[in-house]
Amino acid sequence: MLHISRSLTKLLGELKKLPSVGDKTALRLAFHLLKSPENLSALAKSLLEVRDGVRFCSTCFGITESDPCHLCTTPRDDASICVVEEPQDILAMERSQAFKGRYHVLHGALSPLNGVTPGQLRIAELLQRLENGSVKEVLLATNFTVEGEATALYLTRLIKPLSIKVTRLAHGIPIGSDLEYVDAATVQRAVEGRSEL
Amino acid sequence: MLHISRSLTKLLGELKKLPSVGDKTALRLAFHLLKSPENLSALAKSLLEVRDGVRFCSTCFGITESDPCHLCTTPRDDASICVVEEPQDILAMERSQAFKGRYHVLHGALSPLNGVTPGQLRIAELLQRLENGSVKEVLLATNFTVEGEATALYLTRLIKPLSIKVTRLAHGIPIGSDLEYVDAATVQRAVEGRSEL
Repeated sequence: MLHISRSLTKLLGELKKLPSVGDKTALRLAFHLLKSPENLSALAKSLLEVRDGVRFCSTCFGITESDPCHLCTTPRDDASICVVEEPQDILAMERSQAFKGRYHVLHGALSPLNGVTPGQLRIAELLQRLENGSVKEVLLATNFTVEGEATALYLTRLIKPLSIKVTRLAHGIPIGSDLEYVDAATVQRAVEGRSEL
Repeated sequence: MLHISRSLTKLLGELKKLPSVGDKTALRLAFHLLKSPENLSALAKSLLEVRDGVRFCSTCFGITESDPCHLCTTPRDDASICVVEEPQDILAMERSQAFKGRYHVLHGALSPLNGVTPGQLRIAELLQRLENGSVKEVLLATNFTVEGEATALYLTRLIKPLSIKVTRLAHGIPIGSDLEYVDAATVQRAVEGRSEL
């Protein structure tokens, strides 16, 4: 990049580390911010506030500013725990308003090829939460990828012997789908999981 | 957005002010940054460095850290000035390596409907640079939009009476184009501007 200031070049480098931001997007973002210094300052300030204020909840390992977090302290159903891979997955679950229990974030999924073993996930902490016997159901909401499915299988084998019900989110046709375009494996699962009307 | 920390909500708000960043992209960017606190700090730091270090050159009004800027001080052809709308347009010109003169950034284009009048652009400063008579050619490289064309026309009427040659970037078929898909107006300009081989 020719004839750009040193600090701008550095900013472009930092912006390009963001997901799906390349050379052109980084330039557009940087020049947009240059045009409105007050937005630039506000963005820098809120980044620092997030860095200093946001931590992981010591119970569920979701993100929070106060430990334990809101979801761990408000009255909810203590008998069920929903296990997710990442903190943002909690948002997807909460948007559905279908789950009223507690959460547990693993911070990843098992992936031996990428060197992610059970010890690197928050699995020991999950088992510890199940020890006192108050939890009756664990809903596995890891992603429906190879890694997510492997993690769900691994957790099932660990938790079932504790006489706790282990459930998994249903597979099926997404709302609003055209059956014609749904992949065969999903249709197969939807047939297997069909319900009586 | 439910159950997100206050500072994270604020960061999402700031990210959404960026061009082509909506709810989902802002969430993805924010959680990406949360996962790597060192990137988050580096981004905040370089934003502040850009805010404090980058200013506009008092001669050409491009961005720079030292005033006057690199492009205004290195040996280049003083007889020609290329007029562009925004600082980033200088980069596009420099990438082409086709122009060896000086630059002048207007910081916008005439747009009476949006309240942008000649007084808000760096037009007076451009005319001042033309006063000493050393400039022989002004290359108008404003965008090929209604506003950019109007600005080019306006500047032509101001500069031509000073006995300075006023030129405009050529219209034509972009390199690598399929003639079949080029719009009619562009083909028309390409025919009008055809060159002998």
